[in-house]
Amino acid sequence: MQAQLIALDWGTTSLRAYLLGCAGQVLKTRSLASGIMQLPNAARLVAGHWCTNGFELAFDDACGDWLDANPGIPVIACGMVGSAQGWREVAYRETPASLNALSTALQTVRSVRGVEVHIVPGVIQHSVLPNVMRGEETQVLGVLQTLPHLNDCLIGLPGSHSKWVQVQDGCLVHFDTFMTGELYAAVCAHTILGRTQQHSAQFDLAAFERGVQVALSPAGQLGPLSTLFSARTLGLTGQLSATQQPDYVSGLLIGHELAALSTVLRQHLGEQPLPTIILIGNSQLCERYQRALGACGFADVSLAEQATEQGLWHLAQAAGLLQHTHLEA
Amino acid sequence: MQAQLIALDWGTTSLRAYLLGCAGQVLKTRSLASGIMQLPNAARLVAGHWCTNGFELAFDDACGDWLDANPGIPVIACGMVGSAQGWREVAYRETPASLNALSTALQTVRSVRGVEVHIVPGVIQHSVLPNVMRGEETQVLGVLQTLPHLNDCLIGLPGSHSKWVQVQDGCLVHFDTFMTGELYAAVCAHTILGRTQQHSAQFDLAAFERGVQVALSPAGQLGPLSTLFSARTLGLTGQLSATQQPDYVSGLLIGHELAALSTVLRQHLGEQPLPTIILIGNSQLCERYQRALGACGFADVSLAEQATEQGLWHLAQAAGLLQHTHLEA
Repeated sequence: MQAQLIALDWGTTSLRAYLLGCAGQVLKTRSLASGIMQLPNAARLVAGHWCTNGFELAFDDACGDWLDANPGIPVIACGMVGSAQGWREVAYRETPASLNALSTALQTVRSVRGVEVHIVPGVIQHSVLPNVMRGEETQVLGVLQTLPHLNDCLIGLPGSHSKWVQVQDGCLVHFDTFMTGELYAAVCAHTILGRTQQHSAQFDLAAFERGVQVALSPAGQLGPLSTLFSARTLGLTGQLSATQQPDYVSGLLIGHELAALSTVLRQHLGEQPLPTIILIGNSQLCERYQRALGACGFADVSLAEQATEQGLWHLAQAAGLLQHTHLEA
Repeated sequence: MQAQLIALDWGTTSLRAYLLGCAGQVLKTRSLASGIMQLPNAARLVAGHWCTNGFELAFDDACGDWLDANPGIPVIACGMVGSAQGWREVAYRETPASLNALSTALQTVRSVRGVEVHIVPGVIQHSVLPNVMRGEETQVLGVLQTLPHLNDCLIGLPGSHSKWVQVQDGCLVHFDTFMTGELYAAVCAHTILGRTQQHSAQFDLAAFERGVQVALSPAGQLGPLSTLFSARTLGLTGQLSATQQPDYVSGLLIGHELAALSTVLRQHLGEQPLPTIILIGNSQLCERYQRALGACGFADVSLAEQATEQGLWHLAQAAGLLQHTHLEA
């Protein structure tokens, strides 16, 4: 099948490249550690030019051979590559944000090869506390295109900075961020809780669920600043082993995230049922969230796949970057 | 005045020594960085014995000359020196804990000089999530002895691990722990929030109070895992400068601690007024807590002084360690 699009998911710590064929079918993928904060720095020739720019080098690593093999193929990218620290800063678009709004706001950077890379803007929400995303908007749009019947649902993107996105009529209308993943890492590596922890290759489901239950219990009302200390005291009193502590802390933090989210949702919804949840992300992390969501009373939770590549495909299509859009529409 | 007692406040990162005269009057103090996790390790002669033990070396640094000058003077110590990682482990006493209960449970370690060091036990609370303290129990008892009319009050000990202790009829009856100080340090040093922060010698009161207000506002209902991200987004949108960010984050975390504490208190108290608060600790940190407590509706907040040395004095007295207890009582 002929390649139609090179799609890049270019974040802080990783760069994932997709070679897509007609209708967005994935022909090839490649995964590199060349996120925008850890770009390659060994200068070399790229397409006949001596090159020192880390973005150029990573871009060539990711898809130089695909570009050579497919002259004229369009390139689209999302994520932190469009941030102030990225290859080219692309201004945020405001909520509510739709596929059309974002596809008309792509900005380009011309690589040393002469190829234009079209970068997707992030999304900003001007609420009392502003909120921003870069990359997740593309994943959400990918899910909305793949599951067009979806409406009034909540899309969760667990990760270092978890996002919870409310979608209505094909638009991202509201979102919240929780720094759960990054705080988990900081707590385990840089507080007293890490000193008694022992990491295990095996996920300890019981310890995780215990943490979730504590967060949802009356004791959890004191919040994570307080309940975290129980990882230490349950250890001191022989009620939680060293290998159980990491998954217990994970359960505590994810439990507090979801308890707070569901409390605020219930205030807004009144008697209405909790929304359908779609999760996007790492499958092991999504499994944790799925279990914790069940404990919080979310009855309808499912996982989305290929959200990023589908989002990039549909944005490129809406932006008119594809050669035979009429055939694929 | 003749010295009557050497009192040591020996924690994880510091060792403070007090030479006390009659009625617990402070004659001399000395402050060392020799907490139990950073003991001296250069072997030397101590009172004629070749000594490699870090506890012995720190003890000699702290008060060797006082011991030489006051033969037979009793020594008492509180804090992490009585933990499993301390000089001698002293089992926790359970809540409710009184001066008498703790003073009858001192345990001794004999130093190379032949001097016995009497170590105060910590306190454990066997609630659903167990809670422990070592050192704070002594400070609370010091306040209760200094202000004997106090009853039904809440004593706050801000710090790496803040403690909130309910006292009734001279007993510690309940306490909660918040890891606010340690989490603040981990967040600023080891998450993305630190990257845009610039530290300033000046306390930015407005930024601090803004953080407190966010924690207490409807936006604060999503909890600290979520509101912390606003330090980044307010920065990105030009609403919070790099030098304001540390005090804003401090206000957020202290605000969430106190919002959770007061919510749970109000549930228990019903229509009764919020309790009197006494704060013990570093004066700059106590000032932050005092401001945030005011914002949470606590009308009666005051600061205690000399809590540790008074607590150690009265514990020594109750344990019969002082020579002329009848004169000082």
